[in-house]
Amino acid sequence: MKRSERLVSMTRYFLENPKEHTSLPYFSDQYDAAKSSISEDLTIIDRVIRQEGAGWLQTLPGASGGVSFQPSMAQERGGRFIADLCKTLADPARLLPGGYLYMSDILGDPKMVNQIGHILASAFSDREIDVVMTVATKGIPLAYAVAAVLNVPVVIVRRDAKVTEGSSVSINYVSGSPRKIQTMVLPKRSLHADANVCIIDDFMKAGGTINGMISLIGEFNANVQAIGVLAEADDEEEERVVQHYTSLIKISNVDLKQRTIDVRPGHYN
Amino acid sequence: MKRSERLVSMTRYFLENPKEHTSLPYFSDQYDAAKSSISEDLTIIDRVIRQEGAGWLQTLPGASGGVSFQPSMAQERGGRFIADLCKTLADPARLLPGGYLYMSDILGDPKMVNQIGHILASAFSDREIDVVMTVATKGIPLAYAVAAVLNVPVVIVRRDAKVTEGSSVSINYVSGSPRKIQTMVLPKRSLHADANVCIIDDFMKAGGTINGMISLIGEFNANVQAIGVLAEADDEEEERVVQHYTSLIKISNVDLKQRTIDVRPGHYN
Repeated sequence: MKRSERLVSMTRYFLENPKEHTSLPYFSDQYDAAKSSISEDLTIIDRVIRQEGAGWLQTLPGASGGVSFQPSMAQERGGRFIADLCKTLADPARLLPGGYLYMSDILGDPKMVNQIGHILASAFSDREIDVVMTVATKGIPLAYAVAAVLNVPVVIVRRDAKVTEGSSVSINYVSGSPRKIQTMVLPKRSLHADANVCIIDDFMKAGGTINGMISLIGEFNANVQAIGVLAEADDEEEERVVQHYTSLIKISNVDLKQRTIDVRPGHYN
Repeated sequence: MKRSERLVSMTRYFLENPKEHTSLPYFSDQYDAAKSSISEDLTIIDRVIRQEGAGWLQTLPGASGGVSFQPSMAQERGGRFIADLCKTLADPARLLPGGYLYMSDILGDPKMVNQIGHILASAFSDREIDVVMTVATKGIPLAYAVAAVLNVPVVIVRRDAKVTEGSSVSINYVSGSPRKIQTMVLPKRSLHADANVCIIDDFMKAGGTINGMISLIGEFNANVQAIGVLAEADDEEEERVVQHYTSLIKISNVDLKQRTIDVRPGHYN
Protein backbone atom coordinates (compact mmCIF):
# COMPACT_ATOMS: atom_id res chain seq x y z
CA MET A 1 0.00 0.00 0.00
CA LYS A 2 1.26 3.45 -0.90
CA ARG A 3 1.77 6.17 1.70
CA SER A 4 -1.24 8.12 0.43
CA GLU A 5 -3.53 5.12 0.89
CA ARG A 6 -1.95 4.21 4.20
CA LEU A 7 -2.63 7.68 5.56
CA VAL A 8 -6.34 7.39 4.73
CA SER A 9 -6.55 3.92 6.26
CA MET A 10 -4.61 4.81 9.41
CA THR A 11 -6.56 8.02 9.97
CA ARG A 12 -9.75 5.98 9.80
CA TYR A 13 -8.29 3.42 12.21
CA PHE A 14 -7.37 6.04 14.81
CA LEU A 15 -10.69 7.87 14.60
CA GLU A 16 -12.61 4.62 15.05
CA ASN A 17 -10.41 3.41 17.90
CA PRO A 18 -9.78 6.36 20.21
CA LYS A 19 -7.59 5.78 23.28
CA GLU A 20 -6.68 2.31 22.02
CA HIS A 21 -3.05 1.36 22.33
CA THR A 22 -1.70 -0.19 19.10
CA SER A 23 1.83 -1.49 18.54
CA LEU A 24 3.89 -0.26 15.59
CA PRO A 25 4.49 -3.84 14.33
CA TYR A 26 0.71 -4.16 13.94
CA PHE A 27 0.75 -1.35 11.39
CA SER A 28 3.92 -2.68 9.70
CA ASP A 29 2.23 -6.06 9.23
CA GLN A 30 -1.12 -4.63 8.25
CA TYR A 31 0.33 -2.40 5.52
CA ASP A 32 3.45 -4.40 4.70
CA ALA A 33 5.57 -1.30 5.32
CA ALA A 34 8.85 -0.59 7.10
CA LYS A 35 8.67 0.64 10.68
CA SER A 36 10.39 3.86 9.61
CA SER A 37 7.67 4.54 7.02
CA ILE A 38 4.96 3.94 9.62
CA SER A 39 6.73 6.36 11.97
CA GLU A 40 6.71 9.05 9.28
CA ASP A 41 2.99 8.40 8.66
CA LEU A 42 2.31 8.83 12.38
CA THR A 43 4.18 12.16 12.39
CA ILE A 44 2.02 13.46 9.55
CA ILE A 45 -1.26 12.30 11.15
CA ASP A 46 -0.25 13.73 14.52
CA ARG A 47 0.63 17.11 12.97
CA VAL A 48 -2.71 17.42 11.15
CA ILE A 49 -4.96 16.45 14.05
CA ARG A 50 -3.06 18.80 16.37
CA GLN A 51 -3.39 21.66 13.87
CA GLU A 52 -7.10 21.02 13.61
CA GLY A 53 -7.57 20.97 17.38
CA ALA A 54 -8.88 17.41 17.43
CA GLY A 55 -6.30 15.76 19.68
CA TRP A 56 -2.93 14.09 19.18
CA LEU A 57 -1.17 10.76 18.80
CA GLN A 58 0.51 9.55 21.97
CA THR A 59 3.57 7.40 21.35
CA LEU A 60 4.98 5.14 24.05
CA PRO A 61 8.54 3.88 23.44
CA GLY A 62 9.96 0.46 24.32
CA ALA A 63 9.00 -3.16 23.83
CA SER A 64 5.45 -2.67 25.02
CA GLY A 65 5.38 0.64 23.17
CA GLY A 66 2.94 1.77 20.57
CA VAL A 67 0.65 4.60 19.67
CA SER A 68 -2.84 5.74 20.61
CA PHE A 69 -5.10 8.53 19.42
CA GLN A 70 -6.00 10.89 22.26
CA PRO A 71 -9.05 12.83 21.11
CA SER A 72 -9.32 16.28 22.65
CA MET A 73 -11.24 19.23 21.41
CA ALA A 74 -9.07 22.35 21.48
CA GLN A 75 -10.14 25.05 23.95
CA GLU A 76 -10.78 27.50 21.14
CA ARG A 77 -12.94 25.15 19.06
CA GLY A 78 -14.88 24.11 22.16
CA GLY A 79 -15.35 27.75 23.17
CA ARG A 80 -16.78 28.66 19.75
CA PHE A 81 -19.17 25.72 19.88
CA ILE A 82 -20.38 26.70 23.36
CA ALA A 83 -20.85 30.34 22.33
CA ASP A 84 -23.03 29.23 19.38
CA LEU A 85 -24.99 26.90 21.65
CA CYS A 86 -25.67 29.74 24.10
CA LYS A 87 -27.10 31.84 21.27
CA THR A 88 -29.35 28.97 20.12
CA LEU A 89 -30.62 28.24 23.63
CA ALA A 90 -31.19 31.87 24.65
CA ASP A 91 -34.44 31.90 22.65
CA PRO A 92 -37.28 32.64 25.13
CA ALA A 93 -39.58 30.36 23.06
CA ARG A 94 -37.63 27.52 24.65
CA LEU A 95 -38.86 28.33 28.15
CA LEU A 96 -40.96 25.58 29.68
CA PRO A 97 -42.99 25.48 32.92
CA GLY A 98 -40.82 25.09 36.04
CA GLY A 99 -37.91 27.02 34.56
CA TYR A 100 -36.83 24.17 32.30
CA LEU A 101 -35.53 24.76 28.80
CA TYR A 102 -36.58 22.89 25.66
CA MET A 103 -33.40 21.19 24.46
CA SER A 104 -34.80 18.05 22.79
CA ASP A 105 -33.86 19.30 19.33
CA ILE A 106 -30.22 19.69 20.41
CA LEU A 107 -30.21 16.35 22.24
CA GLY A 108 -31.90 14.69 19.25
CA ASP A 109 -29.17 15.71 16.81
CA PRO A 110 -26.41 13.06 16.80
CA LYS A 111 -23.82 15.49 15.45
CA MET A 112 -24.50 18.05 18.20
CA VAL A 113 -24.51 15.32 20.82
CA ASN A 114 -21.16 14.00 19.59
CA GLN A 115 -19.63 17.48 19.72
CA ILE A 116 -20.89 18.01 23.27
CA GLY A 117 -19.53 14.58 24.18
CA HIS A 118 -16.13 15.51 22.75
CA ILE A 119 -15.95 18.72 24.77
CA LEU A 120 -16.93 17.02 28.03
CA ALA A 121 -14.55 14.10 27.42
CA SER A 122 -11.74 16.57 26.65
CA ALA A 123 -12.31 18.26 30.01
CA PHE A 124 -11.75 14.89 31.71
CA SER A 125 -8.89 13.64 29.54
CA ASP A 126 -6.36 13.75 32.42
CA ARG A 127 -8.50 11.64 34.78
CA GLU A 128 -8.63 7.90 34.99
CA ILE A 129 -12.15 6.84 34.04
CA ASP A 130 -13.38 3.25 33.73
CA VAL A 131 -17.06 3.79 33.09
CA VAL A 132 -19.59 6.54 32.30
CA MET A 133 -22.82 6.61 34.32
CA THR A 134 -26.06 8.39 33.54
CA VAL A 135 -29.70 8.19 34.57
CA ALA A 136 -32.47 7.39 32.10
CA THR A 137 -33.53 8.98 29.80
CA LYS A 138 -32.26 12.30 28.49
CA GLY A 139 -28.65 11.90 29.54
CA ILE A 140 -28.20 8.63 27.65
CA PRO A 141 -27.06 9.96 24.25
CA LEU A 142 -24.59 12.36 25.91
CA ALA A 143 -23.23 9.56 28.09
CA TYR A 144 -22.58 7.40 25.00
CA ALA A 145 -20.93 10.30 23.19
CA VAL A 146 -18.55 10.86 26.12
CA ALA A 147 -17.92 7.12 26.54
CA ALA A 148 -17.13 6.65 22.85
CA VAL A 149 -14.36 9.27 23.11
CA LEU A 150 -13.02 7.85 26.38
CA ASN A 151 -13.34 4.27 25.04
CA VAL A 152 -15.16 2.99 28.12
CA PRO A 153 -18.59 1.38 28.70
CA VAL A 154 -21.78 3.09 29.86
CA VAL A 155 -24.05 2.08 32.73
CA ILE A 156 -27.57 3.43 32.91
CA VAL A 157 -29.31 4.02 36.21
CA ARG A 158 -33.08 3.57 36.08
CA ARG A 159 -36.06 4.78 38.05
CA ASP A 160 -37.44 1.23 38.20
CA ALA A 161 -35.89 -2.25 38.06
CA LYS A 162 -36.19 -4.08 34.73
CA VAL A 163 -36.72 -7.81 34.44
CA THR A 164 -34.02 -8.06 31.79
CA GLU A 165 -31.15 -7.05 34.03
CA GLY A 166 -31.07 -9.44 36.99
CA SER A 167 -30.68 -8.40 40.64
CA SER A 168 -30.07 -4.76 41.48
CA VAL A 169 -29.18 -2.21 44.15
CA SER A 170 -31.63 0.63 44.77
CA ILE A 171 -31.44 3.87 46.75
CA ASN A 172 -33.84 6.70 47.55
CA TYR A 173 -32.94 10.29 46.86
CA VAL A 174 -34.55 13.74 47.00
CA SER A 175 -34.95 15.81 43.88
CA GLY A 176 -37.09 18.38 42.10
CA SER A 177 -39.14 21.29 43.34
CA PRO A 178 -41.29 20.54 45.20
CA ARG A 179 -38.82 18.11 46.74
CA LYS A 180 -39.84 14.55 46.15
CA ILE A 181 -38.42 11.24 47.31
CA GLN A 182 -37.52 9.14 44.29
CA THR A 183 -35.88 5.79 43.65
CA MET A 184 -32.85 4.93 41.56
CA VAL A 185 -31.82 1.40 40.58
CA LEU A 186 -28.65 -0.10 39.14
CA PRO A 187 -28.17 -3.80 38.24
CA LYS A 188 -25.59 -5.47 40.49
CA ARG A 189 -23.48 -6.79 37.65
CA SER A 190 -23.14 -3.45 35.91
CA LEU A 191 -20.56 -1.80 38.20
CA HIS A 192 -17.47 -3.21 39.93
CA ALA A 193 -16.07 -2.10 43.29
CA ASP A 194 -13.29 0.49 42.89
CA ALA A 195 -14.46 1.45 39.39
CA ASN A 196 -13.67 5.06 38.48
CA VAL A 197 -16.92 6.63 37.37
CA CYS A 198 -17.72 9.70 35.28
CA ILE A 199 -21.29 10.95 35.84
CA ILE A 200 -22.99 12.58 32.82
CA ASP A 201 -26.41 14.22 32.61
CA ASP A 202 -28.18 16.74 30.42
CA PHE A 203 -29.47 19.18 33.03
CA MET A 204 -28.71 20.06 36.65
CA LYS A 205 -30.71 22.31 38.93
CA ALA A 206 -30.13 21.75 42.67
CA GLY A 207 -28.27 18.57 41.76
CA GLY A 208 -30.45 16.05 43.61
CA THR A 209 -30.37 13.50 40.80
CA ILE A 210 -26.61 13.70 40.46
CA ASN A 211 -26.29 13.48 44.24
CA GLY A 212 -28.39 10.31 44.04
CA MET A 213 -25.93 8.83 41.55
CA ILE A 214 -23.04 9.76 43.87
CA SER A 215 -24.77 7.85 46.72
CA LEU A 216 -25.40 4.89 44.44
CA ILE A 217 -21.72 4.83 43.40
CA GLY A 218 -20.89 4.80 47.12
CA GLU A 219 -23.11 1.74 47.61
CA PHE A 220 -20.99 -0.09 45.03
CA ASN A 221 -17.74 1.10 46.70
CA ALA A 222 -16.79 2.77 43.44
CA ASN A 223 -15.30 6.27 42.98
CA VAL A 224 -16.70 9.44 41.43
CA GLN A 225 -13.94 10.82 39.19
CA ALA A 226 -15.81 13.43 37.17
CA ILE A 227 -19.23 15.01 36.80
CA GLY A 228 -20.30 16.64 33.55
CA VAL A 229 -23.60 18.20 32.47
CA LEU A 230 -24.67 20.00 29.34
CA ALA A 231 -26.60 22.72 31.19
CA GLU A 232 -26.91 23.92 34.75
CA ALA A 233 -29.62 26.24 36.02
CA ASP A 234 -29.95 28.17 39.25
CA ASP A 235 -32.56 26.85 41.59
CA GLU A 236 -33.84 29.67 43.78
CA GLU A 237 -35.42 27.37 46.30
CA GLU A 238 -32.46 25.15 46.97
CA GLU A 239 -28.76 25.42 47.31
CA ARG A 240 -26.72 23.24 44.98
CA VAL A 241 -25.74 19.97 46.66
CA VAL A 242 -23.06 19.06 44.09
CA GLN A 243 -19.81 21.04 44.25
CA HIS A 244 -17.25 19.92 41.67
CA TYR A 245 -18.60 19.55 38.17
CA THR A 246 -18.19 20.69 34.57
CA SER A 247 -21.06 22.35 32.73
CA LEU A 248 -21.00 23.72 29.19
CA ILE A 249 -23.72 26.30 29.70
CA LYS A 250 -25.35 28.08 32.62
CA ILE A 251 -28.94 29.27 32.58
CA SER A 252 -29.94 32.05 34.96
CA ASN A 253 -32.44 34.85 35.56
CA VAL A 254 -35.27 32.80 34.13
CA ASP A 255 -38.38 34.99 34.18
CA LEU A 256 -41.40 33.03 33.04
CA LYS A 257 -43.66 36.12 33.17
CA GLN A 258 -41.43 38.44 31.16
CA ARG A 259 -40.21 35.44 29.15
CA THR A 260 -36.56 36.38 29.49
CA ILE A 261 -33.55 34.24 30.16
CA ASP A 262 -29.75 34.44 30.42
CA VAL A 263 -27.65 31.72 28.82
CA ARG A 264 -23.87 31.87 29.27
CA PRO A 265 -20.91 29.52 29.13
CA GLY A 266 -20.80 27.30 32.22
CA HIS A 267 -18.05 25.91 34.46
CA TYR A 268 -15.84 24.71 31.65
CA ASN A 269 -12.10 25.18 31.55
CA MET B 1 -1.02 21.96 2.67
CA LYS B 2 0.70 18.94 1.17
CA ARG B 3 -1.25 16.01 -0.30
CA SER B 4 -0.29 13.76 2.61
CA GLU B 5 -1.70 16.22 5.14
CA ARG B 6 -4.74 16.93 3.01
CA LEU B 7 -5.58 13.22 2.90
CA VAL B 8 -5.57 12.99 6.70
CA SER B 9 -7.69 16.11 7.05
CA MET B 10 -10.19 15.15 4.33
CA THR B 11 -10.56 11.60 5.67
CA ARG B 12 -11.38 13.06 9.08
CA TYR B 13 -13.85 15.48 7.48
CA PHE B 14 -15.74 12.71 5.66
CA LEU B 15 -15.87 10.38 8.66
CA GLU B 16 -17.24 13.14 10.86
CA ASN B 17 -19.77 14.30 8.28
CA PRO B 18 -21.36 11.21 6.74
CA LYS B 19 -24.00 11.75 4.04
CA GLU B 20 -23.19 15.45 3.92
CA HIS B 21 -22.95 16.96 0.48
CA THR B 22 -19.85 19.16 0.10
CA SER B 23 -18.84 21.11 -2.99
CA LEU B 24 -15.37 20.70 -4.49
CA PRO B 25 -14.67 24.46 -4.32
CA TYR B 26 -15.08 24.18 -0.52
CA PHE B 27 -12.12 21.81 -0.40
CA SER B 28 -10.10 23.89 -2.90
CA ASP B 29 -10.56 26.96 -0.70
CA GLN B 30 -10.03 25.12 2.55
CA TYR B 31 -6.73 23.58 1.45
CA ASP B 32 -5.65 26.18 -1.11
CA ALA B 33 -5.32 23.43 -3.72
CA ALA B 34 -6.27 23.04 -7.38
CA LYS B 35 -9.53 21.31 -8.16
CA SER B 36 -7.61 18.61 -10.02
CA SER B 37 -5.53 17.85 -6.92
CA ILE B 38 -8.68 17.62 -4.81
CA SER B 39 -10.17 15.23 -7.37
CA GLU B 40 -7.13 12.99 -7.12
CA ASP B 41 -7.38 13.06 -3.32
CA LEU B 42 -11.01 12.00 -3.53
CA THR B 43 -10.09 9.09 -5.80
CA ILE B 44 -7.55 7.83 -3.26
CA ILE B 45 -9.93 8.17 -0.31
CA ASP B 46 -12.74 6.48 -2.23
CA ARG B 47 -10.48 3.56 -3.19
CA VAL B 48 -9.33 2.92 0.39
CA ILE B 49 -12.74 3.08 2.06
CA ARG B 50 -14.19 0.80 -0.64
CA GLN B 51 -11.35 -1.70 -0.16
CA GLU B 52 -11.94 -1.67 3.58
CA GLY B 53 -15.68 -2.26 3.20
CA ALA B 54 -16.57 0.99 4.95
CA GLY B 55 -18.55 2.71 2.18
CA TRP B 56 -17.70 5.01 -0.72
CA LEU B 57 -17.55 8.63 -1.87
CA GLN B 58 -20.49 9.65 -4.02
CA THR B 59 -19.68 12.35 -6.54
CA LEU B 60 -22.39 14.43 -8.20
CA PRO B 61 -21.32 16.35 -11.31
CA GLY B 62 -22.49 19.79 -12.42
CA ALA B 63 -22.82 23.25 -10.90
CA SER B 64 -24.55 21.99 -7.79
CA GLY B 65 -22.21 19.02 -7.77
CA GLY B 66 -20.01 17.83 -4.97
CA VAL B 67 -19.11 14.83 -2.96
CA SER B 68 -20.50 12.97 0.03
CA PHE B 69 -19.31 10.02 2.10
CA GLN B 70 -21.82 7.15 2.01
CA PRO B 71 -20.98 4.90 4.94
CA SER B 72 -21.91 1.28 4.38
CA MET B 73 -20.57 -1.77 6.11
CA ALA B 74 -19.66 -4.44 3.56
CA GLN B 75 -21.80 -7.60 3.67
CA GLU B 76 -18.80 -9.71 4.56
CA ARG B 77 -17.61 -7.50 7.44
CA GLY B 78 -21.17 -7.28 8.76
CA GLY B 79 -21.59 -11.05 8.50
CA ARG B 80 -18.42 -11.69 10.50
CA PHE B 81 -19.53 -9.26 13.19
CA ILE B 82 -22.96 -10.92 13.45
CA ALA B 83 -21.41 -14.41 13.64
CA ASP B 84 -19.20 -13.28 16.55
CA LEU B 85 -22.18 -11.67 18.26
CA CYS B 86 -24.17 -14.93 17.98
CA LYS B 87 -21.35 -16.80 19.71
CA THR B 88 -21.20 -14.24 22.52
CA LEU B 89 -24.96 -14.24 23.08
CA ALA B 90 -25.42 -18.03 22.90
CA ASP B 91 -24.14 -18.34 26.48
CA PRO B 92 -26.97 -19.89 28.58
CA ALA B 93 -25.82 -17.78 31.57
CA ARG B 94 -27.45 -14.88 29.72
CA LEU B 95 -30.93 -16.37 30.02
CA LEU B 96 -33.30 -14.26 32.10
CA PRO B 97 -36.85 -14.95 33.36
CA GLY B 98 -39.49 -14.67 30.62
CA GLY B 99 -37.14 -15.84 27.87
CA TYR B 100 -35.26 -12.54 27.71
CA LEU B 101 -31.53 -12.41 27.16
CA TYR B 102 -29.02 -10.33 29.14
CA MET B 103 -27.53 -7.95 26.56
CA SER B 104 -26.74 -4.89 28.70
CA ASP B 105 -23.00 -5.47 28.39
CA ILE B 106 -23.25 -5.36 24.58
CA LEU B 107 -25.60 -2.37 24.62
CA GLY B 108 -23.33 -0.63 27.15
CA ASP B 109 -20.26 -0.80 24.90
CA PRO B 110 -20.17 2.26 22.62
CA LYS B 111 -17.94 0.52 20.07
CA MET B 112 -20.28 -2.49 19.76
CA VAL B 113 -23.28 -0.18 19.57
CA ASN B 114 -21.66 1.86 16.80
CA GLN B 115 -20.90 -1.29 14.80
CA ILE B 116 -24.49 -2.52 15.17
CA GLY B 117 -25.69 0.93 14.13
CA HIS B 118 -23.47 0.82 11.04
CA ILE B 119 -24.84 -2.56 9.98
CA LEU B 120 -28.47 -1.53 10.43
CA ALA B 121 -27.92 1.81 8.69
CA SER B 122 -26.21 0.00 5.80
CA ALA B 123 -29.27 -2.23 5.37
CA PHE B 124 -31.38 0.93 4.93
CA SER B 125 -28.96 2.93 2.82
CA ASP B 126 -31.22 2.84 -0.26
CA ARG B 127 -34.28 4.19 1.58
CA GLU B 128 -35.15 7.80 2.16
CA ILE B 129 -35.09 8.36 5.92
CA ASP B 130 -35.66 11.70 7.66
CA VAL B 131 -35.66 10.62 11.28
CA VAL B 132 -34.92 7.63 13.51
CA MET B 133 -37.49 6.71 16.18
CA THR B 134 -37.07 4.52 19.24
CA VAL B 135 -38.82 3.96 22.56
CA ALA B 136 -37.09 4.60 25.89
CA THR B 137 -34.80 3.17 27.20
CA LYS B 138 -32.72 0.35 25.79
CA GLY B 139 -33.09 1.21 22.12
CA ILE B 140 -31.74 4.75 22.57
CA PRO B 141 -28.02 4.13 22.03
CA LEU B 142 -28.73 1.99 18.94
CA ALA B 143 -31.05 4.64 17.54
CA TYR B 144 -28.31 7.29 17.89
CA ALA B 145 -25.74 5.00 16.29
CA VAL B 146 -28.02 4.45 13.27
CA ALA B 147 -28.94 8.15 13.09
CA ALA B 148 -25.30 9.26 13.20
CA VAL B 149 -24.56 7.16 10.11
CA LEU B 150 -27.71 8.32 8.29
CA ASN B 151 -27.07 11.94 9.39
CA VAL B 152 -30.64 12.43 10.65
CA PRO B 153 -32.15 13.33 14.05
CA VAL B 154 -33.58 10.95 16.66
CA VAL B 155 -36.97 11.13 18.34
CA ILE B 156 -37.59 9.20 21.53
CA VAL B 157 -41.04 7.86 22.40
CA ARG B 158 -41.71 7.66 26.13
CA ARG B 159 -43.97 5.69 28.42
CA ASP B 160 -45.01 8.90 30.20
CA ALA B 161 -45.18 12.58 29.21
CA LYS B 162 -42.35 14.79 30.50
CA VAL B 163 -42.80 18.39 31.56
CA THR B 164 -39.76 19.46 29.57
CA GLU B 165 -41.18 18.66 26.16
CA GLY B 166 -44.44 20.56 25.80
CA SER B 167 -47.70 19.10 24.47
CA SER B 168 -47.78 15.54 23.19
CA VAL B 169 -49.73 12.84 21.39
CA SER B 170 -50.32 9.57 23.23
CA ILE B 171 -51.63 6.16 22.18
CA ASN B 172 -52.39 2.87 23.90
CA TYR B 173 -50.94 -0.40 22.69
CA VAL B 174 -50.80 -4.03 23.74
CA SER B 175 -47.50 -5.69 24.52
CA GLY B 176 -45.77 -8.33 26.62
CA SER B 177 -46.84 -11.69 27.90
CA PRO B 178 -49.18 -11.61 29.70
CA ARG B 179 -50.61 -9.03 27.31
CA LYS B 180 -50.85 -5.63 28.93
CA ILE B 181 -52.27 -2.31 27.75
CA GLN B 182 -49.54 0.30 27.84
CA THR B 183 -49.18 3.96 26.88
CA MET B 184 -46.73 5.62 24.52
CA VAL B 185 -46.17 9.37 24.24
CA LEU B 186 -44.43 11.58 21.69
CA PRO B 187 -44.12 15.38 21.95
CA LYS B 188 -46.05 17.15 19.19
CA ARG B 189 -43.15 19.21 17.95
CA SER B 190 -40.82 16.24 17.54
CA LEU B 191 -42.26 14.76 14.32
CA HIS B 192 -43.56 16.42 11.15
CA ALA B 193 -46.33 15.11 8.92
CA ASP B 194 -44.96 13.12 5.94
CA ALA B 195 -41.65 12.48 7.71
CA ASN B 196 -39.99 9.20 6.65
CA VAL B 197 -39.28 7.27 9.81
CA CYS B 198 -36.88 4.44 10.62
CA ILE B 199 -37.90 2.52 13.78
CA ILE B 200 -35.05 1.06 15.85
CA ASP B 201 -35.23 -1.10 18.98
CA ASP B 202 -33.02 -3.55 20.82
CA PHE B 203 -35.37 -6.51 21.14
CA MET B 204 -38.56 -7.74 19.49
CA LYS B 205 -40.78 -10.61 20.60
CA ALA B 206 -44.36 -10.48 19.31
CA GLY B 207 -43.68 -6.93 18.14
CA GLY B 208 -46.32 -5.12 20.21
CA THR B 209 -44.04 -2.23 21.10
CA ILE B 210 -42.94 -1.72 17.51
CA ASN B 211 -46.56 -1.99 16.40
CA GLY B 212 -47.32 0.77 18.92
CA MET B 213 -44.70 2.98 17.29
CA ILE B 214 -46.22 2.26 13.87
CA SER B 215 -49.62 3.43 15.17
CA LEU B 216 -48.06 6.53 16.69
CA ILE B 217 -46.36 7.36 13.38
CA GLY B 218 -49.80 7.01 11.76
CA GLU B 219 -51.22 9.54 14.22
CA PHE B 220 -48.63 12.06 12.99
CA ASN B 221 -49.40 11.22 9.32
CA ALA B 222 -45.79 10.22 8.89
CA ASN B 223 -44.44 7.11 7.06
CA VAL B 224 -42.67 4.00 8.32
CA GLN B 225 -39.73 3.46 5.97
CA ALA B 226 -37.69 0.86 7.84
CA ILE B 227 -37.73 -1.22 11.02
CA GLY B 228 -34.52 -2.54 12.54
CA VAL B 229 -33.85 -4.47 15.74
CA LEU B 230 -30.72 -5.96 17.21
CA ALA B 231 -32.42 -9.20 18.29
CA GLU B 232 -35.71 -10.94 17.64
CA ALA B 233 -37.07 -13.85 19.65
CA ASP B 234 -39.91 -16.23 18.98
CA ASP B 235 -42.92 -15.74 21.16
CA GLU B 236 -44.78 -19.02 21.50
CA GLU B 237 -47.93 -17.43 22.80
CA GLU B 238 -48.38 -14.84 20.11
CA GLU B 239 -47.93 -14.50 16.41
CA ARG B 240 -45.68 -11.69 15.29
CA VAL B 241 -47.65 -8.55 14.43
CA VAL B 242 -44.83 -6.86 12.54
CA GLN B 243 -43.99 -8.21 9.09
CA HIS B 244 -41.18 -6.34 7.34
CA TYR B 245 -38.15 -5.72 9.48
CA THR B 246 -34.40 -6.26 9.71
CA SER B 247 -32.87 -8.11 12.65
CA LEU B 248 -29.22 -8.92 13.19
CA ILE B 249 -29.80 -11.99 15.33
CA LYS B 250 -32.62 -14.40 16.02
CA ILE B 251 -33.09 -16.20 19.33
CA SER B 252 -35.10 -19.41 19.39
CA ASN B 253 -35.70 -22.66 21.27
CA VAL B 254 -35.23 -20.95 24.60
CA ASP B 255 -35.53 -23.63 27.28
CA LEU B 256 -35.36 -22.10 30.73
CA LYS B 257 -35.41 -25.50 32.45
CA GLN B 258 -32.62 -27.10 30.42
CA ARG B 259 -30.97 -23.69 30.10
CA THR B 260 -30.40 -24.03 26.38
CA ILE B 261 -30.81 -21.50 23.62
CA ASP B 262 -30.29 -21.09 19.87
CA VAL B 263 -28.80 -17.84 18.58
CA ARG B 264 -28.47 -17.41 14.80
CA PRO B 265 -28.15 -14.57 12.30
CA GLY B 266 -31.50 -12.86 11.81
CA HIS B 267 -33.34 -11.30 8.88
CA TYR B 268 -30.42 -9.35 7.53
CA ASN B 269 -29.49 -9.13 3.89
